[in-house]
Amino acid sequence: MKNFRKEIVFQTKNRVEFINITGEVQRAIDESGIKEGLCLVNSMHITSSVFINDDESGLHNDFRIWLESLAPHEPISKYRHNLTGEDNADAHLKRQIMGREVVVAVTNGKLDFGPWEQIFYGEFDGCRRKRVLIKIIGE
Amino acid sequence: MKNFRKEIVFQTKNRVEFINITGEVQRAIDESGIKEGLCLVNSMHITSSVFINDDESGLHNDFRIWLESLAPHEPISKYRHNLTGEDNADAHLKRQIMGREVVVAVTNGKLDFGPWEQIFYGEFDGCRRKRVLIKIIGE
Amino acid sequence: MKNFRKEIVFQTKNRVEFINITGEVQRAIDESGIKEGLCLVNSMHITSSVFINDDESGLHNDFRIWLESLAPHEPISKYRHNLTGEDNADAHLKRQIMGREVVVAVTNGKLDFGPWEQIFYGEFDGCRRKRVLIKIIGE
Repeated sequence: MKNFRKEIVFQTKNRVEFINITGEVQRAIDESGIKEGLCLVNSMHITSSVFINDDESGLHNDFRIWLESLAPHEPISKYRHNLTGEDNADAHLKRQIMGREVVVAVTNGKLDFGPWEQIFYGEFDGCRRKRVLIKIIGE
Repeated sequence: MKNFRKEIVFQTKNRVEFINITGEVQRAIDESGIKEGLCLVNSMHITSSVFINDDESGLHNDFRIWLESLAPHEPISKYRHNLTGEDNADAHLKRQIMGREVVVAVTNGKLDFGPWEQIFYGEFDGCRRKRVLIKIIGE
Repeated sequence: MKNFRKEIVFQTKNRVEFINITGEVQRAIDESGIKEGLCLVNSMHITSSVFINDDESGLHNDFRIWLESLAPHEPISKYRHNLTGEDNADAHLKRQIMGREVVVAVTNGKLDFGPWEQIFYGEFDGCRRKRVLIKIIGE
């Protein structure tokens, strides 16, 4: 069994941002030399997500509005977590809806994907250094 | 390390539908000959889900109503994604709540499940051909 | 390839409760002797979750209130599932938002985590015996 580990670093300019990382994950699979296996991609932070959906800017706008309606950023004082001095309680909630991680199949050295699947880093408390972990096992 | 890959194809009659695929996943494990490992089951599409919950029709009705309240299909014009000519923006949102994939343990050649766990394909934009991927690694 | 399996048992005193199980998962990794691999941690029940977020009591209170607003326990009669004699339909919904499972990387024999990541068992229909499964594969 082979295994491979890599980190990707982000520092977004906006509090909320979606970044397509499909190419970087495929490059990690290439570097690993693994042809058949499973690839875990997870946020190493608790206010951001890794998820799979469509690379369509209108949809990303819909996600932003929808998540804001389900877990609004303001009023800050609405959340007890923000009594710690943080203002990011909403980001912890949004991340639960979008998920922490994806596990994807590696087949014949490629991401084994349907026609529209793309992997995104979803930031909900940006403007600071964040990391995503890629861990691949297989052979 | 062994690995095994299989696709299941669906074409639902309704826009929203939940289909129990536990038997098909266990059959894939049987075919694979893998006794100990991990089994990934994921939708290959971005408007449907694979999830684990109860096989109870009342609950499935509750899911349908609840998801519709959180991410309504109409008005279509509410979503910017639908400006692309699609009418399925809500399906992309519903799928985030229900999830893209499950990873399940394989122990002694069987799905290692609690008493009520059943695997479902959750369709939110049906009446077209869709696929689910099963990828198993182990030995 | 090595594999390792372990169950953790819970019986909470409250209907809704969040329990930090990070130490127990690390102990399972230690027992397994696996240095590089993937570790699945999942609820074996369909009214509870395993998820990764912050170990901060204010945030857990926010989770409780937020989940109650998205999927209220009462009125019991609101849910068709509860016609079966259960009163836990809301717990089945809450668990979909928080997720069934996490898959975490094992690197050099340790949980490969960012600075604040902690694993929680999230109970939404407590006061009865429940189990969490840990399955680790790797070498």
